[in-house]
Amino acid sequence: MSPIRACALIALLALTSGSSAETTSDWRSVDPQNLVLIDTKYGQVAVELAPEFAPNHAARLRALIRAHFYDGLSFYRVIDGFVAQGGIGEGTASTTDHPVAAKDLAMWPPLKAEFDRISKPQPAFTPLGNADPMASDVGFEDGFPVARNGDEGREWLIHCPGTFAFARDNRPDTATTEFYIVIGEAPRRLDRALSAFGRVLSGMQYLQKLERGDVAIDNGVIADSSKRDPIIRMRIAADIPVQDRRAYRVIRTDSEAFADAVELRRHPTSPFYFRKPPPVLDICSVPVDVKRFAP
Amino acid sequence: MSPIRACALIALLALTSGSSAETTSDWRSVDPQNLVLIDTKYGQVAVELAPEFAPNHAARLRALIRAHFYDGLSFYRVIDGFVAQGGIGEGTASTTDHPVAAKDLAMWPPLKAEFDRISKPQPAFTPLGNADPMASDVGFEDGFPVARNGDEGREWLIHCPGTFAFARDNRPDTATTEFYIVIGEAPRRLDRALSAFGRVLSGMQYLQKLERGDVAIDNGVIADSSKRDPIIRMRIAADIPVQDRRAYRVIRTDSEAFADAVELRRHPTSPFYFRKPPPVLDICSVPVDVKRFAP
Repeated sequence: MSPIRACALIALLALTSGSSAETTSDWRSVDPQNLVLIDTKYGQVAVELAPEFAPNHAARLRALIRAHFYDGLSFYRVIDGFVAQGGIGEGTASTTDHPVAAKDLAMWPPLKAEFDRISKPQPAFTPLGNADPMASDVGFEDGFPVARNGDEGREWLIHCPGTFAFARDNRPDTATTEFYIVIGEAPRRLDRALSAFGRVLSGMQYLQKLERGDVAIDNGVIADSSKRDPIIRMRIAADIPVQDRRAYRVIRTDSEAFADAVELRRHPTSPFYFRKPPPVLDICSVPVDVKRFAP
Repeated sequence: MSPIRACALIALLALTSGSSAETTSDWRSVDPQNLVLIDTKYGQVAVELAPEFAPNHAARLRALIRAHFYDGLSFYRVIDGFVAQGGIGEGTASTTDHPVAAKDLAMWPPLKAEFDRISKPQPAFTPLGNADPMASDVGFEDGFPVARNGDEGREWLIHCPGTFAFARDNRPDTATTEFYIVIGEAPRRLDRALSAFGRVLSGMQYLQKLERGDVAIDNGVIADSSKRDPIIRMRIAADIPVQDRRAYRVIRTDSEAFADAVELRRHPTSPFYFRKPPPVLDICSVPVDVKRFAP
């Protein structure tokens, strides 16, 4: 290996890797009741729910999953650089394709919006440490990116790549069964405008493989349902026998190890950065590391 | 189609679509000398070069392409949410796989860095119209996202999803043959630290399908070269017979049509936004529309 290129590899490692001083107590085990597994034909996507941000939506999602509602449905609206939307595709060609659609939809009436909630006090909220263009405060709670407007006493999940939320129609209280996952540059203008309550822990690369729609045609809905990539099945990890399920751990965003990683990202010490970047971080570009353990 | 869902589709269209008042003069034809076509097994990626931001790198890239240097090489370092890096993979397992590697590398000595250039006066530069976290001014030139620090008189291409640049080692003047394309949340801390001189006009969804490396293992380099997705070939559009080549047009970012689209994005009128988002745009989330015409 050429020493020059070897240097480059080491230098660039600092872009995405955290501190090496982590200890076991810096990691939080993911509650299997909050772990949603989405099987696609490219691989499995793991989503951690933050049910306290949208308790009724989280309960609805769990009920839908346990009713096998999503199994065999599809990602019917996938817009590159924006979102992958899955579900029954109400109002799209797939609705009539799915035999249980008509009878089941009445079971899932529209939910009242859960766009934000009462702010949690520190230390639950760990500030990022710099200004954000869209909110007066941003930081992390249990690994989730969170925004606040200080004087309102409300907080909400930020739309970063990997954020999981329920879709809705024009009116606020209209989410029923359809979900989306952000797959592109953080669409921050959706913050506090939809009920967001989860984030992808692993498998983003499988979502990135999903067949795309054309945003100029029916706003990205893939008309030919045979071209849509299926949701093979969705499960709650808690429903899988312990011996068959993977465990996930997420770095504690209120730990020193995480603070060190953020600091290193803000002030990189690698010689690669011979000119130091401005010490300002986009909250959506800060990795919140995840470890996955085989069953 | 359910009227409720139909509404939602219309509402969300405003997220990604431009003004409907565009005219032919609002569009610029892409110079085929600046149009790089990368054939992957998933589809063709089209990159427009902005050679004036890094003239020696652009000349090098054209020379490499015309020497068929990249044809049959691979995307050997692909990190989800960050970059897809292609080329010979000097210092990686692929170097010895490629028969011409050893003899050819001496032909491509390290280039002097071209991280920024003297700022162009307005109206070439169209300001975005709001503050940016990383630079004193950001805006567009010929469709490319550009940042400046006002008092220095220098400007550079911003690292947005789709930005094309040459990789380097720790020292500034070390780029030779390897390129990368941003495939994740804008890595703005790379701004002005690498020679960036192009952006993807179409085919981002094909880059998103590329086989990923594991960032925790050799910084995302895919050790098993048989798993790397190949660069089937790279061409300059000007080298393709006119009757066989697609024409591309890009919206003029100094046009009224573009200004209208930015304004609509900043102040969305769709009823979907019953609560208006903060009137602040991330420059990397502003679409610069592209039209593609069959040969």
